[in-house]
Amino acid sequence: MSHWRARSEVRLRVRYAETDQMGVVYHSHFLVWFEVGRVELLRQLGFNYADLEREHDCHLPVVELRCRYKSPARYDDQVVVRTELRHMRGPLLQFAYEVVRESDQTLLAEGETTHLVVTAKFEKKPLPEGLRLAFEQVV
Amino acid sequence: MSHWRARSEVRLRVRYAETDQMGVVYHSHFLVWFEVGRVELLRQLGFNYADLEREHDCHLPVVELRCRYKSPARYDDQVVVRTELRHMRGPLLQFAYEVVRESDQTLLAEGETTHLVVTAKFEKKPLPEGLRLAFEQVV
Amino acid sequence: MSHWRARSEVRLRVRYAETDQMGVVYHSHFLVWFEVGRVELLRQLGFNYADLEREHDCHLPVVELRCRYKSPARYDDQVVVRTELRHMRGPLLQFAYEVVRESDQTLLAEGETTHLVVTAKFEKKPLPEGLRLAFEQVV
Amino acid sequence: MSHWRARSEVRLRVRYAETDQMGVVYHSHFLVWFEVGRVELLRQLGFNYADLEREHDCHLPVVELRCRYKSPARYDDQVVVRTELRHMRGPLLQFAYEVVRESDQTLLAEGETTHLVVTAKFEKKPLPEGLRLAFEQVV
Repeated sequence: MSHWRARSEVRLRVRYAETDQMGVVYHSHFLVWFEVGRVELLRQLGFNYADLEREHDCHLPVVELRCRYKSPARYDDQVVVRTELRHMRGPLLQFAYEVVRESDQTLLAEGETTHLVVTAKFEKKPLPEGLRLAFEQVV
Repeated sequence: MSHWRARSEVRLRVRYAETDQMGVVYHSHFLVWFEVGRVELLRQLGFNYADLEREHDCHLPVVELRCRYKSPARYDDQVVVRTELRHMRGPLLQFAYEVVRESDQTLLAEGETTHLVVTAKFEKKPLPEGLRLAFEQVV
Repeated sequence: MSHWRARSEVRLRVRYAETDQMGVVYHSHFLVWFEVGRVELLRQLGFNYADLEREHDCHLPVVELRCRYKSPARYDDQVVVRTELRHMRGPLLQFAYEVVRESDQTLLAEGETTHLVVTAKFEKKPLPEGLRLAFEQVV
Repeated sequence: MSHWRARSEVRLRVRYAETDQMGVVYHSHFLVWFEVGRVELLRQLGFNYADLEREHDCHLPVVELRCRYKSPARYDDQVVVRTELRHMRGPLLQFAYEVVRESDQTLLAEGETTHLVVTAKFEKKPLPEGLRLAFEQVV
């Protein structure tokens, strides 16, 4: 158990397709950005989510999510998604996220997602051992 | 203040575009379904959200959301989105949602969204009087 | 071979999530509406696309598409998607679409998609016999 | 008029949200990738599309598109979108695109989009002079 938490940072540019008629990013797209951040955190720890699914029959569907929107994201903004693993309790993992506009470091949104470890058939299963050990180092 | 809460029900069919490679609906699409439910609740109370924006400069961006996923939604499922107004506190409105598969009434997800009343420039403003009164009847 | 073509009509309401910052529907969403129209055409002919995939290992990925945008679709517009089967040539099917705003019958877009009949592994296969016969009646 | 065409290249990683239940990218997302490519081509020529909209009231809605799908894109694939300006005829611009999987250079899709130059109110207007001159150099 370490004193620091692993954190990934990934940069994304807001797409026109992600805006809505208020001239800002429609709120559901932040959840997709969270996905991008989470996958990069796994990659940084040495795990590829595509391989986890394919080779280990390990899937991490979202079972709960929260998001608090602080300031609108706008078209062509470069945003940074920061992700960390917050908890690991039995078959549940929780990740936390911050989305920040890079130019001025304005916090745009923050949130959490909780995931269950399951097979392709949605049966609960333990985390693959390697991933569990890696997570224990950083949570 | 009434003893019942206004509730809208809207039926949607899951689109192929909404599925992901686990063979279920990707989680962010439920937030779009919540939007559809919320707009139908407004319509049922006599308000058209397009007109609220255009004629009253009244916009309701999401400032917080939660969603708990209970069972996967699948391609071509007919789902029912039930929406009710839960709170109205100053400039904040909270709606609550249930998404149910129509064929067997399985609860697929439930959640809440909180909205701030703002102008097109994201300045806080009071709810238009008519809408406030209508909400007070049903909250 | 008949003198008329089967045509489905399906009604959709434009979602806020489908708009962009020009205040109109972002162009890629029309392709999703085409999907909805195509699936309803199949349903009208007695076929459920979910079952075709699951029970007949028959998948119809898009291999080519065209779309011409005639007039912007706007938030909360009720639109009608009209779909017909245009050709069936060996393993290729072509569908044609019109999207019309219901209130004033303005043509918003028209397009075509071409599909290949494949297994889940993307191997070419013939159309299931029942579907082929149904299509021959209407093309 | 030059002998070469300006071409942008932009790298994207396929998101889980972009897959569908066939285990491949749903076809409409390629159109969003085309948008990303087109905007990068403008940026490479010294123009920012956000500024074109905001400062020059210059908008480039899609009026026609074509896409031919050659091979499925899969989750976590790193793809390259290559974009070039193909024509400029009066108020119409045409861009052409190739999407290639980076690891093995497999062509995944190719297509074209045609755009009309308009104001925010969808009135035709000429291209801003600077952009027209830049385009003439590279078309």
